[in-house]
Amino acid sequence: MEGELKPMNAEQLRECGHRMVDFIADYYKDIENFPVLSQVQPGYLRQLLPGSAPVHPDTLEDVLDDMQRKILPGVTHWQSPNFFAYYPSNSSVAGFLGEMLSAGINMVGFSWITSPAATELEMIVLDWLAKALNLPDDFLSTGRGGGVIQGTASEAVLVVLLAARDKVLRKIGKDAIGKLVVYSSDQTHSALQKACQIAGIHPDNCRVLKTDSSTDYALSPESLSEAITHDLAIGLVPFFLCATVGSTSSTAVDPLLALGKITKSNGIWFHVDAAYAGSSCVCPELRHYIDGVEEADSFNMNAHKWFLTNFDCSILWVKDRSALIQSLSTNPEFLKNNASEKNVVVDYKDWQIPLGRRFRSLKLWMVLRLYGLENLQAYIRNHIKLARDFEKLVAQDSRFEIVAPRKFSLVCFRLLSPQSDEDCANKLNRDLLDAANSTGKIYISHTVLSNKYTLRFAVGAPLTEERHVVDAWKVLQVEASNLLRTL
Amino acid sequence: MEGELKPMNAEQLRECGHRMVDFIADYYKDIENFPVLSQVQPGYLRQLLPGSAPVHPDTLEDVLDDMQRKILPGVTHWQSPNFFAYYPSNSSVAGFLGEMLSAGINMVGFSWITSPAATELEMIVLDWLAKALNLPDDFLSTGRGGGVIQGTASEAVLVVLLAARDKVLRKIGKDAIGKLVVYSSDQTHSALQKACQIAGIHPDNCRVLKTDSSTDYALSPESLSEAITHDLAIGLVPFFLCATVGSTSSTAVDPLLALGKITKSNGIWFHVDAAYAGSSCVCPELRHYIDGVEEADSFNMNAHKWFLTNFDCSILWVKDRSALIQSLSTNPEFLKNNASEKNVVVDYKDWQIPLGRRFRSLKLWMVLRLYGLENLQAYIRNHIKLARDFEKLVAQDSRFEIVAPRKFSLVCFRLLSPQSDEDCANKLNRDLLDAANSTGKIYISHTVLSNKYTLRFAVGAPLTEERHVVDAWKVLQVEASNLLRTL
Repeated sequence: MEGELKPMNAEQLRECGHRMVDFIADYYKDIENFPVLSQVQPGYLRQLLPGSAPVHPDTLEDVLDDMQRKILPGVTHWQSPNFFAYYPSNSSVAGFLGEMLSAGINMVGFSWITSPAATELEMIVLDWLAKALNLPDDFLSTGRGGGVIQGTASEAVLVVLLAARDKVLRKIGKDAIGKLVVYSSDQTHSALQKACQIAGIHPDNCRVLKTDSSTDYALSPESLSEAITHDLAIGLVPFFLCATVGSTSSTAVDPLLALGKITKSNGIWFHVDAAYAGSSCVCPELRHYIDGVEEADSFNMNAHKWFLTNFDCSILWVKDRSALIQSLSTNPEFLKNNASEKNVVVDYKDWQIPLGRRFRSLKLWMVLRLYGLENLQAYIRNHIKLARDFEKLVAQDSRFEIVAPRKFSLVCFRLLSPQSDEDCANKLNRDLLDAANSTGKIYISHTVLSNKYTLRFAVGAPLTEERHVVDAWKVLQVEASNLLRTL
Repeated sequence: MEGELKPMNAEQLRECGHRMVDFIADYYKDIENFPVLSQVQPGYLRQLLPGSAPVHPDTLEDVLDDMQRKILPGVTHWQSPNFFAYYPSNSSVAGFLGEMLSAGINMVGFSWITSPAATELEMIVLDWLAKALNLPDDFLSTGRGGGVIQGTASEAVLVVLLAARDKVLRKIGKDAIGKLVVYSSDQTHSALQKACQIAGIHPDNCRVLKTDSSTDYALSPESLSEAITHDLAIGLVPFFLCATVGSTSSTAVDPLLALGKITKSNGIWFHVDAAYAGSSCVCPELRHYIDGVEEADSFNMNAHKWFLTNFDCSILWVKDRSALIQSLSTNPEFLKNNASEKNVVVDYKDWQIPLGRRFRSLKLWMVLRLYGLENLQAYIRNHIKLARDFEKLVAQDSRFEIVAPRKFSLVCFRLLSPQSDEDCANKLNRDLLDAANSTGKIYISHTVLSNKYTLRFAVGAPLTEERHVVDAWKVLQVEASNLLRTL
C-alpha cells in the first residue's frame, strides 16, 4: 500500500478490505485444522505481546501475522464443524456480509432521525419474521406492539422485567418494590436471575420452581398456581413469569397455554424465552412448541444462535411497546428533534438499555433475503436430523444412556458407571468431557439434570455435516473406552 | 456465483466478501454526494419493501441494488465529512478491518474458556490504553482493577452504579434502597438518569446540581458538599457521583480533584464519564483535563466516538473489579469450567449486563497497531485545530456569538436576534438549524445552555478537512442571511 494508512480513505479501505476478506476466507478453509477448544494456558498472551501500545504504526501484514501466530491459537472456534458445546452461535456468508455493511456505514441509530432506514428496516424485518413464526398480530409494529433487536437474551429479559416492574409500581407505589415476586423454573436461564439482581428484585422473592424428569423438566402449571396463591396470601405481589421454550440444559419446553391462563388471571407479565428454539419454529412442523404464545406479553428468540445471523441479534417482540418506553425513555435536550416531538416515529433508544445502536437489522435482512425462508427451514431440519442420527448412535451403545428426550438439535446423554454409585458416574462423565475436549477434535459442554452430570451434544454450526457427527461419536467412544479401562 | 448460497462456504464468502468490500469502498468514494441528514419522511421504507420475507433466495446483486436505491436514501451519513451533529462516531480503515475480523471469527467470549484470546487481548489492550492515558496503576488489570469494553457509556455507568449500589446495600441492608442518593450536574448525560431508573434509585433521590456560565457549566464542589451535608442531615445515604469530562452539551469539565476529595471523605463511589473527551487525553498537552482521575473509582471513554474505533467500543476502567463481579456474576451449571472454578482467569460475563460478547478488543487492537499513538494524537489535534478555525470564523461575524468556551473540537454558538427578546432568539436559532440541515449539505445539532437555544458544531468525522469546515460556515451564513431578511 502506498503511504501511511489514513483514518479513512476509500481506496485504502478497498485494498485492505480485500486482503482481510482473503484472510477470513482462508480461516474458514483451514478451520478444521485448529483444535476446536483452545488448548492455551491462562496468561499465555501477555508473554507474547509488548507491554504498551506502539507509537509508530505497524503494517497490516504484521498484524495479520500476529493474528495467525499469536491470537488464533487462543481462539475457541465456534464456527468449527466440530463445535457441539453450549448452543451454536451461527456465522454465515449472508450474516458476515451484513456485519460488513453495518460496520462500513457505521451510523448510530438511537433515534429515527439519526438514520430513518435503520429504524424502519428493523420494524419491517421483525414484522416479516413475526409472520414467518406465525406470531399473533399483537406483536406486529403496525399495532400497539412491535419488535426490537437487543444484543442478547439477557438484555431482552431485563428490559421486559423493568417494564413489568414499573407498570406494577406505578399502580402500587414505588416503595412496594420489596413485595414484587418473579416466577421461573429451575431450568430458566441465569439471565433472569441477573435481571432480577439488576432491577432490585429481592432475592427472596424470586421463586425458582422445581422441575424433574416427570415433565421432561418443564414447569408445571400446578406448581406455578400454588406458588402464586401462597404469595398472595402473605401479601406479596406476583408480577412476572419467565417461561422457556428450549431450555439451556435440555431443551425443556414449558406449557405456554396453561401458564398463560394463570398469568392472565393474575395480571402477571408473561415473558417467553425461546432464545435457542425459537428459530426452529419457522418450520411449520415445529411451530407447535410455541403454541400458547398468544397469551404472552413478550417473546424472545436469538437469531444469532441458530438462524445464520452473526452475533449479536436477539429479537424481542412485545405487545405493549408503551410499557417498555415508559421504563426506558429519556428525553435530553440535545436529542430533541421534530420527528420525535411530533410522536410520529419509533425511537429505539427507548426500547433498550444503551443509547447508541448499530444498523442492527441489516444482517437479519440479508439473511432472510439471501437464503429465503425455504433454505432457513432446510437448515434447521438438517441439524435436527443430524442430532437424531447422533441420538441413535448413543442409543446403540449400551454403555451410554440418553438423559432427556431430544426435541430439537441437542442430545443430553451420559456414560453409565460400572459401579452404581452416583458420584462415580458423575466423575466418570466429567472426566469424559475433559478427555474429549482435550483432544481438540470436538468441543462439548455439560449440565446437571436431577443431580446427574450430563453431557450436552448440540448440533448447530453451519459447517457441520454427517461425517463430523459420526467422527465426534467415535472420539467419545474411544475416550470412554480408555476411561472405563482404567477403572 | 455458481449454485445457491450455502450457510457457510469459504469460497462463496471470498467471492461475496470482495463484492461487499467494493460496495463499501464505493460508498466512501461517493459519500459527499448524499444529503448528510436523510431527507425521507416517516414510513417511507414500508412503501418500498414487500410485506413478508422471501420464500426463495434473492441474489446479492438484488440486495445491493435495494441497498443503494431504497436503504441509502434513508441513511443519515455519520461518516460524511459534513457531519457535525451530536458527537462523532468514527469509522476508520483499521476499525472496519477489526469489525470484519471479529464478525468473521464470530466467537462468543463470555468466559475465558470460550475463547481465551478474546479475554486476554482485551485485558492487555486496555492496559496499553490506560498507560497511554497515564491513568493510575490502580486501573490496570495486573492489580485489583482492570478495564472492560462495554457497548456504550450508558452500560458503563449502569454497571458501576449497580456495583456501588450493591456495595452499600451489603452494609446497610437491601431494604434501604429508598435512602440511596446519586449526585450529578444538570450537564450530566441522560444515561445516568436512565441507569438510576433501571437500578431502582428513587427519582427524588437523584440530585441534579445546577451549573451556569460562571463555571463554564462545570459542577461546583461547594454545591456538591452542600447537597451531601443536607442529605446526611435528613438521614439519607449519599453513594454515587457521576462527574463529566467533556459534557454532551458544551464539553464542560468537572473539577475531578476537588470532587474526588469530597467523595472520598464521604465513602461515595466516584465515576468519571469522559465518553467524548477521554480520547483526547492521549495528547500530553490535553491530559490535564483528567487530572484528579486518581481519585475516581471508575473511568469511561468511548473509543467509538473520537478514536477511530467503529461502534461499539466503550471502555470502562475500575479500581475494584470485585465490586462489579459481586453485582453481576451468575454461575449456572452449564457454564462451569475448570479455569473459572480455579479462579485463575477473568470471565468478562461478570463485568457486564449481557452474557454473550463479541471479540470486542480486536478492532481497538488493530486501531492502535495500524495507526500507532503518534497518528492518533495527530488525528485528535487536527480536529481541534479545525474546530478552532470554525470558532474564529464565527467570532469574525458580529451577527453570531460563541455561547461557551471551546475546549476540544465542539463549538457552541448562536445567531443573535435583532430583537433582544430571548424567545425570538431561540426561535431564530431553531429555524437556522432546520434550514441548514434541510439543505442536506451539513448536519449540526443543538442544546440549550442557560435557557439559550444553542447550536453545536462538533468536528470529528475522519474525512473532515478544512474545506468542509469552511463550506459549512458558508452554509450557515447564507441560511442566517435568509432568515434575518424575513424578520
